[in-house]
Amino acid sequence: MKLLKHTTEHIQEVVTDPCGDIKTKFKRLAIPIGSLGRLEELATVYISIRGSVNCTIKHKTIFTMAGDHGVAEEGVSAFPQQVTRQMVQNFMDAGAAINVLARHVGAKVVVVDCGVATHLNKNQFSNQCQEQDLRIKKVGLGTKNITIGPAMSRDEAIQALEVGIELVEEELKNGLDIVGTGDMGIANTTPSSAILAVLGKLDVETVTGRGTGLDEEALQRKIRIIKKAIDINQPDPHDPIDVLAKVGGYEIGGIAGLCLGAARHRIPIVLDGFISTAGALIAHAIEPKVKGHLIASHISAEKGHKLMLKLLDKIPLLDLNLRLGEGTGAALGINLIEASIKLLNEMATFQEAGVSEPNRE
Amino acid sequence: MKLLKHTTEHIQEVVTDPCGDIKTKFKRLAIPIGSLGRLEELATVYISIRGSVNCTIKHKTIFTMAGDHGVAEEGVSAFPQQVTRQMVQNFMDAGAAINVLARHVGAKVVVVDCGVATHLNKNQFSNQCQEQDLRIKKVGLGTKNITIGPAMSRDEAIQALEVGIELVEEELKNGLDIVGTGDMGIANTTPSSAILAVLGKLDVETVTGRGTGLDEEALQRKIRIIKKAIDINQPDPHDPIDVLAKVGGYEIGGIAGLCLGAARHRIPIVLDGFISTAGALIAHAIEPKVKGHLIASHISAEKGHKLMLKLLDKIPLLDLNLRLGEGTGAALGINLIEASIKLLNEMATFQEAGVSEPNRE
Repeated sequence: MKLLKHTTEHIQEVVTDPCGDIKTKFKRLAIPIGSLGRLEELATVYISIRGSVNCTIKHKTIFTMAGDHGVAEEGVSAFPQQVTRQMVQNFMDAGAAINVLARHVGAKVVVVDCGVATHLNKNQFSNQCQEQDLRIKKVGLGTKNITIGPAMSRDEAIQALEVGIELVEEELKNGLDIVGTGDMGIANTTPSSAILAVLGKLDVETVTGRGTGLDEEALQRKIRIIKKAIDINQPDPHDPIDVLAKVGGYEIGGIAGLCLGAARHRIPIVLDGFISTAGALIAHAIEPKVKGHLIASHISAEKGHKLMLKLLDKIPLLDLNLRLGEGTGAALGINLIEASIKLLNEMATFQEAGVSEPNRE
Repeated sequence: MKLLKHTTEHIQEVVTDPCGDIKTKFKRLAIPIGSLGRLEELATVYISIRGSVNCTIKHKTIFTMAGDHGVAEEGVSAFPQQVTRQMVQNFMDAGAAINVLARHVGAKVVVVDCGVATHLNKNQFSNQCQEQDLRIKKVGLGTKNITIGPAMSRDEAIQALEVGIELVEEELKNGLDIVGTGDMGIANTTPSSAILAVLGKLDVETVTGRGTGLDEEALQRKIRIIKKAIDINQPDPHDPIDVLAKVGGYEIGGIAGLCLGAARHRIPIVLDGFISTAGALIAHAIEPKVKGHLIASHISAEKGHKLMLKLLDKIPLLDLNLRLGEGTGAALGINLIEASIKLLNEMATFQEAGVSEPNRE
């Protein structure tokens, strides 16, 4: 609790381009004013968070947070629970989508066991290298079934949040210029939908989608299960830690912690899809100042995601109908942000290039 | 004319995944079916054009086609005409946005003088290297003022188209897996709007935007000028070469030629924004089979662009409010296409990764 409290107390509001330096720097570049559109906006957001107009993006880390969910036993996912554990192996073997995309954009993948349902041992995974790394930060062996009682205790919820904060602080030593969030957890669209319903005060039907590919009947069952979970647990919408404990997940808490930890250190956080944004909703409810540090990489095909982004007042960078998680959307978003910073840093000015400025009429 | 005729005659219709190989390959990957959304679609389009499921993307070339426009003297641009020439220098000094983004995505920039209004000499530009190259393919010293008569002769229009075809054929020797289009030409939103109005049979008011930043008064003048150009020249909407000659531009013809040349060699073409898509409209009107080879990288902030994309039945990959040209949107689009191909080629299958497949209920 001490780490969480200390972290949230030190998160500052992001002020956009407080001295107008970024605008001035863009104005000097040999391009028509505003012609870079959202890339100019992105660079402005990134620099405003970092606090220095001279920053570059070198160390890019995507945290793929893994956890299991007791509610999987209700048949809310098209995949069996052991897939979470198997995918951790796949991440460490560099065979997953996030590995391919992280390589493509020059980012490191840190795979985190926040609460996979089996014991994992770092030594099981041979393929650890600079490009991917495993951290064991297990809060529990999967959450409990939320249709019966709370997913986890309040202490565990705080622990999950602190896992995310610790990860950021540990990674700072290696250099950390931007954080991407990612998730892996069979059944985790169910707690994410529940979090959205509670914090957004929205109908369960409105927020619940097909996850990895449910048919209509399974979707209706998932809706009933989420309603039951909220009904039984009565999470308090004014107490985000209670919401996380009652209907959340370990990796979702970890993602919320990443948001808080990165914001406290003025490091931009690039959100992936539905599960990551559920984590961001928790973080935002804990400390609203976190909002300015968040960048939405994409809009997921999962139904409730656009409602989450609306709650956070974010316009996503990409709309590619992705619904994979792992941090895949975040990787692509990071790449655009890096492009925007390179443009600002590497382009010639009108003066340098000897290009005539627009006619002033 | 011989090269143009030979090229258009050899363009084949793109058949999407004719043997179902691509779908089969995606289905085996250890991800929920369809979860890669448009990235799966993109890889499918790319491979369908290339014709082999085992292709990779190594050689990426963005052609930044430069040309001047006589109509600039009517005050339709916020910038003076010499900026075209100055920007060619900036491209060769690697100081422009396209240089930064091409470096970011590992693409080569080929700057082409299709018709800059001053004589350019390759030796003027010291900074030629692997990352950027200049080709002198001048059709004329800028087009004529289209409010007085045709932009160019019919022979010149054919020559401009053949410039684009030649560029592709020359670049094939260096390796060419994907083509990005780009443009530089002060006043070139004016001929592009005219082409859209004629080929799309649309009102000039509907298709004309603010280019590099016109105010309301200048926009109204631009609309009057385009109307006058169409009225005086009476381009035949059923004869795209006539449209190019009467109200087009040398670099626009060159871009149309790139589309035709690349399509003839089954190389995917990634379109940039408004001017590039005007070129694509000409190419498509010459040979409709070119359409399947085109990928729209982004939707430009320039007003008429969405109308162009509608005519070509294309959904853009990115919506970042860019309106710079040069090939900047194409560079970012190429990067997404490359990501999609890497995913298909580098991800582990369910079997390889030892990941359980979905429960079949």
